[in-house]
Amino acid sequence: MNKNPKVVCLGGGHGLAATLGAMRTLTNQVTAVVTVADNGGSSGRLRAEFNSLPPGDLRMALAALCADDEWGRSWAEIMQYRFTSQGEMDNHAVGNLLLTALWDRDTDPVKGLDRVGQLLKVVGRVLPMALEPLDIEGSFTTKNGVEIVRGQVEVSQAIGKVNELKLIPNQPKPTPEVLTALENADWITIGPGSWLSSVMPHFLLGKQAEQIQKSKAKKIMIFNLPDKNILDEYAGFSLEAHLQLVLDHIPDLKIDVALVDKSLAQSDSRFNALVAACGGEVMGFDLADSKQIFHHDREKLILAFSHIFG
Amino acid sequence: MNKNPKVVCLGGGHGLAATLGAMRTLTNQVTAVVTVADNGGSSGRLRAEFNSLPPGDLRMALAALCADDEWGRSWAEIMQYRFTSQGEMDNHAVGNLLLTALWDRDTDPVKGLDRVGQLLKVVGRVLPMALEPLDIEGSFTTKNGVEIVRGQVEVSQAIGKVNELKLIPNQPKPTPEVLTALENADWITIGPGSWLSSVMPHFLLGKQAEQIQKSKAKKIMIFNLPDKNILDEYAGFSLEAHLQLVLDHIPDLKIDVALVDKSLAQSDSRFNALVAACGGEVMGFDLADSKQIFHHDREKLILAFSHIFG
Repeated sequence: MNKNPKVVCLGGGHGLAATLGAMRTLTNQVTAVVTVADNGGSSGRLRAEFNSLPPGDLRMALAALCADDEWGRSWAEIMQYRFTSQGEMDNHAVGNLLLTALWDRDTDPVKGLDRVGQLLKVVGRVLPMALEPLDIEGSFTTKNGVEIVRGQVEVSQAIGKVNELKLIPNQPKPTPEVLTALENADWITIGPGSWLSSVMPHFLLGKQAEQIQKSKAKKIMIFNLPDKNILDEYAGFSLEAHLQLVLDHIPDLKIDVALVDKSLAQSDSRFNALVAACGGEVMGFDLADSKQIFHHDREKLILAFSHIFG
Repeated sequence: MNKNPKVVCLGGGHGLAATLGAMRTLTNQVTAVVTVADNGGSSGRLRAEFNSLPPGDLRMALAALCADDEWGRSWAEIMQYRFTSQGEMDNHAVGNLLLTALWDRDTDPVKGLDRVGQLLKVVGRVLPMALEPLDIEGSFTTKNGVEIVRGQVEVSQAIGKVNELKLIPNQPKPTPEVLTALENADWITIGPGSWLSSVMPHFLLGKQAEQIQKSKAKKIMIFNLPDKNILDEYAGFSLEAHLQLVLDHIPDLKIDVALVDKSLAQSDSRFNALVAACGGEVMGFDLADSKQIFHHDREKLILAFSHIFG
């Protein structure tokens, strides 16, 4: 095992944060690449007010990469803290405001993120997948026919089978630092998380998807846990359907490891065959957090990644 | 000279920040005691939304006590950064939001300030003079007769001679940690700053004034610079009038050093006599910032304090 591998972690939201929280204990060369299509809550309001990237998913990634001592944990907690009031500050997360302030001042989103990273002494680096705010638009087949749904929040609440998914603008400029990180990576992780809004966007941005595909890094795709309550708009669909949705956009994608909860590891022969066709193998581990059963447990992810790396 | 003296610095706003920026290079046992009557701008809005202390003056003190390395300066700068937008975040300072978040969560203002102090690794400690937000009310004699003016912003803009000045509530509970710090101090500094709103409140709170008076600490009163443009509602009044206003509230106050700009040091025999009557001596130093002539220069204050300390 390379002792301090270069790892790029793709995703957004809580799922990416879980991966990062585990990964940073195994390497300090970790780069988070984060979706920037959120349009709800504190992030949506700040995005509208400042025409900035939505900060929420980036903030969560930074908090996950804070140091593991008391000082770092304290910062992580405060970055995540949300105001409660009857007024204009209600629901804003402190970390969202910190990021927005640095973007308001510096205008360069990567510079602002690096600055916050230094201020919080985070391990590794957090990058946005694009330098401009994005929207997601999906076409869904429902009982009432085909519906076009726009916005991350709206897509995540849409009911029906997704036919098409795209970014708006359709092909934004990828972040140059992301392409470099993907090129130089030893490992790339994908997921877990809300499949349509946190995972798929990484494959909808053509140049980034191309770089993922041609990178020599080994690829680990981390699938969601088998819980009906999971906050995943794609819940209920099979593991195979999750993977197939990615392959619909990147047919030649090679993956090395499909990391799934052990309860699912041997039950789905069609999934196993599809993973094998991508050049990989299915690995089942006990992954669920015993308190929040639909979240990945950090310690369990550390064990799984250690095994895979080593 | 005691090599690392315990120093309590009383004041508010830019004046206190100037004193703190100098003092923290001479000792790490510095305690800032800060007025909490601001009702304008970002502080006024947050105070109204959260019924909290107005954070602005406390934020400025924290920024002044940030470490003097690149990381500390970076934090100091970001604490002071204000949003510019057409929306709800406009003019809010980042540090005000950080303090408000911790108060919103912990409710104990001292605990929140200590927490921010730890997060920013500041030298020393920042305390509010009271645990509840205050207002200032003044009675002024103007061309139109006697006017009652309430609010720090309003008092600072009032025209005329001040007859009476009081806090609302009139005798708030002082902060216990402030009384302890005053009791144990080797030195107490007072000012510089807006005389009515940043200096006088410390003498209007009876129990704190009493503790200042009976403390065995040596006392340095730092007077404002001789500039007509100084942002001091008491500008234009003589040094003697500044001191007399304090003595009107605390007739027996002893002071050891009246630190004034050298241009004023020998010109005012009535002032010199009044200082002598308080048991002190007038010391004149070159103190003005060459760029912002009405602000005290940090390096010059360091020289002056070093000389006074011995």
